[in-house]
Amino acid sequence: MNHPKWRLDPDRFFAPDPAQQRVARELYAAVADLPIISPHGHVDPRLFADENATFGTPAELLIIPDHYVFRMLYSQGLPLESLGVPRTDGGPVERDHRRIWQVFAENFHLFRGTPTGVWLTQELIEVFGVTQKLTGETAQAIYDQIEERLAQPAFRPRALFDRFNIEVLTTTDAATDTLEHHKRIQESGWEADIRPTFRPDAVVNLLTDSWQDNVDALSEVSGITVGSYDAFVRALEERRAFFQAMGATATDHAAVSAYTTELAPSEAEAIFQRALRGEATEEDARRFTAHMMMVFARMSVEDGLVMQFHVGAVRNHNRLIYDRFGPDKGCDIPQRSEFTHNLRPLLNEYGNDPRLTLIVFTLDEATYARELAPLAGHYPALKLGPPWWFHDSLNGMQRYFDRVMETASLYNTVGFNDDTRAFPSIPARHDLWRRASANWLTGLVVRGIVDQEDAHEMIVDLAYRLAKRAYKFDEDK
Amino acid sequence: MNHPKWRLDPDRFFAPDPAQQRVARELYAAVADLPIISPHGHVDPRLFADENATFGTPAELLIIPDHYVFRMLYSQGLPLESLGVPRTDGGPVERDHRRIWQVFAENFHLFRGTPTGVWLTQELIEVFGVTQKLTGETAQAIYDQIEERLAQPAFRPRALFDRFNIEVLTTTDAATDTLEHHKRIQESGWEADIRPTFRPDAVVNLLTDSWQDNVDALSEVSGITVGSYDAFVRALEERRAFFQAMGATATDHAAVSAYTTELAPSEAEAIFQRALRGEATEEDARRFTAHMMMVFARMSVEDGLVMQFHVGAVRNHNRLIYDRFGPDKGCDIPQRSEFTHNLRPLLNEYGNDPRLTLIVFTLDEATYARELAPLAGHYPALKLGPPWWFHDSLNGMQRYFDRVMETASLYNTVGFNDDTRAFPSIPARHDLWRRASANWLTGLVVRGIVDQEDAHEMIVDLAYRLAKRAYKFDEDK
Amino acid sequence: MNHPKWRLDPDRFFAPDPAQQRVARELYAAVADLPIISPHGHVDPRLFADENATFGTPAELLIIPDHYVFRMLYSQGLPLESLGVPRTDGGPVERDHRRIWQVFAENFHLFRGTPTGVWLTQELIEVFGVTQKLTGETAQAIYDQIEERLAQPAFRPRALFDRFNIEVLTTTDAATDTLEHHKRIQESGWEADIRPTFRPDAVVNLLTDSWQDNVDALSEVSGITVGSYDAFVRALEERRAFFQAMGATATDHAAVSAYTTELAPSEAEAIFQRALRGEATEEDARRFTAHMMMVFARMSVEDGLVMQFHVGAVRNHNRLIYDRFGPDKGCDIPQRSEFTHNLRPLLNEYGNDPRLTLIVFTLDEATYARELAPLAGHYPALKLGPPWWFHDSLNGMQRYFDRVMETASLYNTVGFNDDTRAFPSIPARHDLWRRASANWLTGLVVRGIVDQEDAHEMIVDLAYRLAKRAYKFDEDK
Repeated sequence: MNHPKWRLDPDRFFAPDPAQQRVARELYAAVADLPIISPHGHVDPRLFADENATFGTPAELLIIPDHYVFRMLYSQGLPLESLGVPRTDGGPVERDHRRIWQVFAENFHLFRGTPTGVWLTQELIEVFGVTQKLTGETAQAIYDQIEERLAQPAFRPRALFDRFNIEVLTTTDAATDTLEHHKRIQESGWEADIRPTFRPDAVVNLLTDSWQDNVDALSEVSGITVGSYDAFVRALEERRAFFQAMGATATDHAAVSAYTTELAPSEAEAIFQRALRGEATEEDARRFTAHMMMVFARMSVEDGLVMQFHVGAVRNHNRLIYDRFGPDKGCDIPQRSEFTHNLRPLLNEYGNDPRLTLIVFTLDEATYARELAPLAGHYPALKLGPPWWFHDSLNGMQRYFDRVMETASLYNTVGFNDDTRAFPSIPARHDLWRRASANWLTGLVVRGIVDQEDAHEMIVDLAYRLAKRAYKFDEDK
Repeated sequence: MNHPKWRLDPDRFFAPDPAQQRVARELYAAVADLPIISPHGHVDPRLFADENATFGTPAELLIIPDHYVFRMLYSQGLPLESLGVPRTDGGPVERDHRRIWQVFAENFHLFRGTPTGVWLTQELIEVFGVTQKLTGETAQAIYDQIEERLAQPAFRPRALFDRFNIEVLTTTDAATDTLEHHKRIQESGWEADIRPTFRPDAVVNLLTDSWQDNVDALSEVSGITVGSYDAFVRALEERRAFFQAMGATATDHAAVSAYTTELAPSEAEAIFQRALRGEATEEDARRFTAHMMMVFARMSVEDGLVMQFHVGAVRNHNRLIYDRFGPDKGCDIPQRSEFTHNLRPLLNEYGNDPRLTLIVFTLDEATYARELAPLAGHYPALKLGPPWWFHDSLNGMQRYFDRVMETASLYNTVGFNDDTRAFPSIPARHDLWRRASANWLTGLVVRGIVDQEDAHEMIVDLAYRLAKRAYKFDEDK
Repeated sequence: MNHPKWRLDPDRFFAPDPAQQRVARELYAAVADLPIISPHGHVDPRLFADENATFGTPAELLIIPDHYVFRMLYSQGLPLESLGVPRTDGGPVERDHRRIWQVFAENFHLFRGTPTGVWLTQELIEVFGVTQKLTGETAQAIYDQIEERLAQPAFRPRALFDRFNIEVLTTTDAATDTLEHHKRIQESGWEADIRPTFRPDAVVNLLTDSWQDNVDALSEVSGITVGSYDAFVRALEERRAFFQAMGATATDHAAVSAYTTELAPSEAEAIFQRALRGEATEEDARRFTAHMMMVFARMSVEDGLVMQFHVGAVRNHNRLIYDRFGPDKGCDIPQRSEFTHNLRPLLNEYGNDPRLTLIVFTLDEATYARELAPLAGHYPALKLGPPWWFHDSLNGMQRYFDRVMETASLYNTVGFNDDTRAFPSIPARHDLWRRASANWLTGLVVRGIVDQEDAHEMIVDLAYRLAKRAYKFDEDK
């Protein structure tokens, strides 16, 4: 059968006006081959700890672990079991990965015009050399091709890491993590810069399902018996020092709301004791998280770790899916956010201190121009993270540029985060950002708002320098 | 006098770049002549029950019943009385329709750049053959022309229905409606597909002005004495079955908020009894509506009626206008909406069930990308309705496409609703949607995001297939 | 050294498509030289009271008083002291204005793509004839040039006022102001139309730091002892009459929220007495402001002063900066706003009265399409002010046009406000608005939404007529 040739438009994502395309091409060319700085993401470090690790089958690589993919198929009535997503009770799920791939291919039209469709297309074409459009008819031939590639040494994680020209890759790791995979990477003699990030949510959020186990684990790895709030704080400090020794330059914190508040030590202690007894309330958890954000800011002022704050996701919105499949299954839904009042206590205490770098991420685009750009355009400590999660798309990036930059200034932003667990999608994601950046700057050039000289500085800032500087990758190692 | 010739730009609403116009023209051409699917609207079925029905005068057709038109004139200080809008007390209003038309024409500049202006212009030119721009000077000549046309058989409602190439038209009808006009249409032998929609708001919202009368009417038409909550539910089930027998495939529900919650039967009964005694509070009404949304979802799972939910309008904001002229007089104002938490009870109970189709409409565009697209991109039962009311415009459609599609996928949306009571505006409204769709898709094509093959599928989906499928017009009759 | 020639693109801010540029140029040309109507702003009238007044040094003109400028430098860690911003305690700050200018120039890249960058660039080139791009290297030469110009009679405030072709300039003045500078201007024989605006916030907001002093001043200037709520209202009425006699056509009111409510006279009196005793609570202040908005609307119905309402700024967000430098130091941050419910009491009482003109300004763009456009498109008294403060930018204006006009109609808006205290930036700000307006209208023309004839009317409305009419500058003097 005669299938259309699958190809990438070399001018993709640029405004179509010929004069604009010329400028955009030139700006993009200046950064297309710059190394990738990936300062926040969720790639599993295990992939790189063993130099012979592989990605498994095409379905294991591209579908089963990727909630961006299977949540879309689920939304059209396809059970997660049919896509091979493992059940928490170990119940039966589809094990024929060719059948999973077939279902995915037959429904690939769902991804028309979505960032997931854009990333997958570019990944299949550029990383795996696929030349036929993915459909139900071409599915098995493409499966064969990817499977064959994945069996080659050139498609092992470390080989792709080198091919992708990644200068720094960061992972996101629990406060209780021993970082053994990072240790193995560092001891292996392989010259890749892969760094952990300290994410203590599972011990900070008192309502986490396994909170008590997590606190026990914290006692064990820190060597500090976490029987009190004071000990808890000391154990966290010990872990931060360990992460920093292992190369971390940043921490990461997620919360439903941006609420920050300083509790009296006695109240912090009382809440912590209630939590240890399994009696913490929702209000306790809310206030304790808000308080710990102040504590983490204080620690960052002291130890210099960059503080990331991801705000606004209601986790596990779909109880049935959570019960059957666990967390991170495509049913985290954003809610409205508020920063002006919620961040005020923290910013009034630490926001004027240039030793702090606080990078805030939002899922509520209404806060870009209204709250976050004005805040970032004033407080020395505050920077604004790139468009996050659902907004990490061509339109999402355009809205971000248009709403943030006029008030915050480019120089109070921090470049790009790919934020992905799908390692082979990293080049496609950074490419989208670089092209979207070039397109935005082109709009400024052709409207006479910035000149070409400035635009050339700005595109390098967006693609490379801002992230490297904000996350302090230029400072040491 | 020499008046400018009034004409429609054949490339109207398309981006002006020549390369884009070429693509847009081609995509639009593929759907320009497809039949109209109108799955939600407010046309009076009486117009079609009598084959000799007419539209009245030009003012009766285009001004007096159209709150989009007279609210704009009112906003500039023109009393509604001067526009012939009837007072609830029967007090005097302008009866000279030529004078009403003159005022309208002299103020037609108010509609520059508004969707109402766009619809009216296209309607006057295409339906009525007007060739001079509407101004104070041309007003009476144009009135003559429309009046003359309206007197012709070819301009009776049924004739226009056929000329407009409408495949399905739905009306919106109270739960207590006997659907006599629909019956007459069906029995007349005229082969038009006109279907009712079950809208029970007037008996569900306990604070509706004439709630007790409505409940009495419900008892009467259902043959079930609605003296208890249980009987109320049974009467509603009886009516749904009746509507379904009359061709309905959908229900419609409107509320200020998207709040849903399951009440204990005893609480539902207690509230209902208070309402029967005229003692229901605002909080009672709020909780009862939230509960009934759960009940309607359960009924839809059972009987298969598609469930529409229109959220966010504060009705009758202007007390003076409401008192003097009644409801639907252009003073319904949107308020901020919240879906992530409010819909959670309903979605956790029924959202994973593919037998349910729940179509949600919002007046708060901030919820598109933040809440509704992520929800629709996950829950199998949830679909997102097209831009509604104030957002049913070229910019409103563009914002909808840009904010919704990347996350939700086109295939979790349902095409277009014209939602109008102004029957002769229907072709103009669908044409605007089809052109806006073509323009959006063109943007994807010229930026290399979808290929032309996919774009051709998507434009047919947008213009025709999605609505037909979502509202189950392809299933029977 | 060879520095790039600094120049302004004659087609700046227009969409780059050649066909669009042709239309935009033509529309812009129709208004480029129209006189400036400046109906709301913060220029100090003292500048014009003395015909020999000067602007001081370049740093005194462009940096030290402009919080748009120094807040951006502060956000990157530059202390306000180093920029010469005076401390409230009189503590030491940089006094070498050339050094301040040097720091500013070295950091001018922070303003890339910002409206402040756009205004400053145009001002330096067009007002001061600068021809080299501002950088660290060119800083001192440019300082020399500006300093030399400022010493010339042609660069005195009155001379620039005439050169700028300003038809009306309004200032914003406390209710207790004696308007002595306005008196001197009027008595000087200079034929400029400079009018005060009545802004009573400092006596209305009971929590203003120096509220008691302000009330004492009110007693003194009005000759009415403000010992009761009744006397307070009478004193305000006296002041309004005085302002009106001095040429004022408008009042201005700012509040964190748009809340309006009518208090019983006894409650208003009770709150006022608590305030006089220094015992007013936050809730007292909130309710009193909400009440006073009703009172001011009543007064406006009676005396015809246009009522402006600026909603949504959280003032002095950064306590450290406020304590050290006082108010208006770039740390006012917007918060979410609500109008549909908050304005309802006022609109239900006075909104149907065409004698009232209420112009509302928002910092929450989510309210444009959702609340304000529908409200302005219905209530005769309500008009929508132009994009304000953080949104007074090219993108901010485009969002405003796109979200407001389709629903509200152009004719329920009021043209442009420059809202600035930076007098020499006024032409650049109005030019940006006129170009953004031309660009918006061009989009309508090339998409076939309005014809060229209508667009020519609309551009004159936007640039000149709407402001003049809304603020009643066409009525008298």
